[in-house]
Amino acid sequence: MRPLSRAAILAVGSELLTPSRIDTNSLFITEQLNLLGIDVVFKGVVGDDRDELATAARAALGRVDLVICSGGLGPTDDDLTREVVAAVLNRPLVEDQAIVDRIEARFASRGMRMPEINRRQAMVPAGARVLANENGTAPGLWLDEGDRVVVLLPGPPREMQPMLTRVMRERLQARSAGGALVRRIVRITGRTESHTEEAVRPLYEPWARAPVPISATILAALGQIELHVTARAAARGEAEAALDAAVRQVAAALGHDAYSVDGRSLEQVVGDLLVERGWRIAVAESCTGGLVTSRLTDVAGSSRYVDRGIVAYANEAKVELLGVPHPLLEEHGAVSEPVAVAMAAGIRTRARVDVGIGVTGIAGPGGGSPAKPVGTVAIAASTASATRSRVCRFIGEREPIKFQAAQAALDMVRRMLSEAGGPGGSGGPSGGPKGPPLRR
Amino acid sequence: MRPLSRAAILAVGSELLTPSRIDTNSLFITEQLNLLGIDVVFKGVVGDDRDELATAARAALGRVDLVICSGGLGPTDDDLTREVVAAVLNRPLVEDQAIVDRIEARFASRGMRMPEINRRQAMVPAGARVLANENGTAPGLWLDEGDRVVVLLPGPPREMQPMLTRVMRERLQARSAGGALVRRIVRITGRTESHTEEAVRPLYEPWARAPVPISATILAALGQIELHVTARAAARGEAEAALDAAVRQVAAALGHDAYSVDGRSLEQVVGDLLVERGWRIAVAESCTGGLVTSRLTDVAGSSRYVDRGIVAYANEAKVELLGVPHPLLEEHGAVSEPVAVAMAAGIRTRARVDVGIGVTGIAGPGGGSPAKPVGTVAIAASTASATRSRVCRFIGEREPIKFQAAQAALDMVRRMLSEAGGPGGSGGPSGGPKGPPLRR
Repeated sequence: MRPLSRAAILAVGSELLTPSRIDTNSLFITEQLNLLGIDVVFKGVVGDDRDELATAARAALGRVDLVICSGGLGPTDDDLTREVVAAVLNRPLVEDQAIVDRIEARFASRGMRMPEINRRQAMVPAGARVLANENGTAPGLWLDEGDRVVVLLPGPPREMQPMLTRVMRERLQARSAGGALVRRIVRITGRTESHTEEAVRPLYEPWARAPVPISATILAALGQIELHVTARAAARGEAEAALDAAVRQVAAALGHDAYSVDGRSLEQVVGDLLVERGWRIAVAESCTGGLVTSRLTDVAGSSRYVDRGIVAYANEAKVELLGVPHPLLEEHGAVSEPVAVAMAAGIRTRARVDVGIGVTGIAGPGGGSPAKPVGTVAIAASTASATRSRVCRFIGEREPIKFQAAQAALDMVRRMLSEAGGPGGSGGPSGGPKGPPLRR
Repeated sequence: MRPLSRAAILAVGSELLTPSRIDTNSLFITEQLNLLGIDVVFKGVVGDDRDELATAARAALGRVDLVICSGGLGPTDDDLTREVVAAVLNRPLVEDQAIVDRIEARFASRGMRMPEINRRQAMVPAGARVLANENGTAPGLWLDEGDRVVVLLPGPPREMQPMLTRVMRERLQARSAGGALVRRIVRITGRTESHTEEAVRPLYEPWARAPVPISATILAALGQIELHVTARAAARGEAEAALDAAVRQVAAALGHDAYSVDGRSLEQVVGDLLVERGWRIAVAESCTGGLVTSRLTDVAGSSRYVDRGIVAYANEAKVELLGVPHPLLEEHGAVSEPVAVAMAAGIRTRARVDVGIGVTGIAGPGGGSPAKPVGTVAIAASTASATRSRVCRFIGEREPIKFQAAQAALDMVRRMLSEAGGPGGSGGPSGGPKGPPLRR
């Protein structure tokens, strides 16, 4: 039988055609299929509508050898996937007694009688193989149609994901060519999209001509650039090995600007660096409003190294809680490098920790001036032996400005902690390119 | 000409077929089209692939009267939307000198020469009307094909959104039937999905039979339930009026559990209540790690009422910064109602504000015990005249637990501030169901 190599994913459900809901199941499904070297060439979303679903299913079957549908397997009249797919494949629906028994048992185990409506879920297209659902009543279905395969999965992620994982292992693996499509994400801060492109572009041609060909795409968002590097090989191990080498080349080309090659977030990288040194951190924030601390504490185990965070929005709070001197605020304004430095040093000494962060800025939409427009943010990091600080101008609206400022603050600490040989620095009172090594 | 009523949306770009990127443009496009009473019946995602794009475009044109594509209008070889759509519509590509001039001027204004590659963006299908792009080089295109219309929009949201808004006003409005599909979102906390359903279900049948029929869907996520209420009417005003009445009925059925009927987030609702009273707030957080304060400060203008936030992860920080008494921590443990109350009262008095919040809990994955499993969170709110507190058990992983805890804390303040007649309360030292009215 021809191995499966091209897939289409259909998400079924009228709520997925409203302005407030989106199909995210396809991300998990894509990730799983790619692991077997199966490409997703098309994704579609249709409502609970017989004609639209039939048209989409027919179109997909004409274009690919594997169609995966999610949703529409529930017990209500809206749930049409089973019967529409049966019609498209010209098969009758037949009642599967084993499914009825399983659903009845599921209800009985909770002391309930199966509602008659659930009997619909036992009507399956003739010839279908039933995929057990460990987390719900809707069974999945596997349908062979010549060389092609149609898989019907339930919509709720906690039912769909374990079912697909099992189908992958028990059925799809044997039907794929055995190849693998593996992807790594390199996360980058501190340079623009085009400067990233410039640095990595020389790698593209040798990658394309390599025995295990590698391709790359740059995705840019405010405050973060990602380079997605993909390898396709006969075996997963081969693809992984080629990616290891490719990612090393990227890291060499980008230097410290590449902060993660293994899926870790910036806050995880900072957390790991702190754990490595046995250091603790405290954060003084103004315009980021707690986001820096919240991101640091998104990481499991962060209570080991996050001591405290202070959101000092009002000037008095900066004086009272962080010891920022009044004259400094008057002379430079609350949004200034000296105040950020005083905040970072203030929280560090008051919390008696190893690293302090200070962030003060104008997140907008109000509060800007010609000298300090919305998006102006002063950031500082302080240790016992070094200080760094800078003023940034971020673009976008309030939330993106908060994110970019948090990103820049975390990145400043990351660089400080990872450039162990010499901390460098700019503008801070005790920092400098030839400053003493960081305390260990 | 037949009015446009059924639309399909196609997103173009290979990155949208990877496990890490999703098409979100279609949400904005759907929202806009619905305002004109145009239904979205199908959404598709295709890669930068000539055959797939042509097949998808052809299929869409056979099913709907309006096709909106986003993406693939850039200057590189990957950008195929213009030429594939021209081929599908059997039209030649012709160079539009006005576009060349505009792109050249855009580059010149930044002191640069237009790269030759950008000339591709001026090749348009014969008969297309050009849609100006205020935020980028890629112009959009409007194509009449008999009674049907194809609109090509650029992919980046900041280019796509203003362009679509303008097309809506200048072209689509006149081509729609003048009907309107309007949706409101009622946001709910403090009850489960099934209890929400129970309360609102009696409304469904009269709604369906009303002159302006109304339909509703419940969408549930951890910590938040949404009821989406949709009306379809000949004119937008009619739909809005019907929804006003429907939303009032929902609010009556759900009481204080419905916190927003106008799109406002919980943090906005809390902010508005604070502004109404001229009150200021301060937050003491432990397990939420700054998230409560960060959410409060996501709201523009929040510096008027957010005084400060303190993330006291370590016990010493709770004592030192919030004045939580040592014996209280020893007797009840850091995760306890008395400690949450002491945190809320401590930050309120130290910051000299009107409302204090205290949150302390176990976000996991570590730190749980049989008596206080992961997800146990104590929450308190304190004013000069009232205190409320409770202990919650949340489910899920670390980030969802943080979100649910922040949601519960903000909701506690909301209820305290909006139940102006009598603050009520439970378990706090100075609160009680018959406590004095809140200070104004």
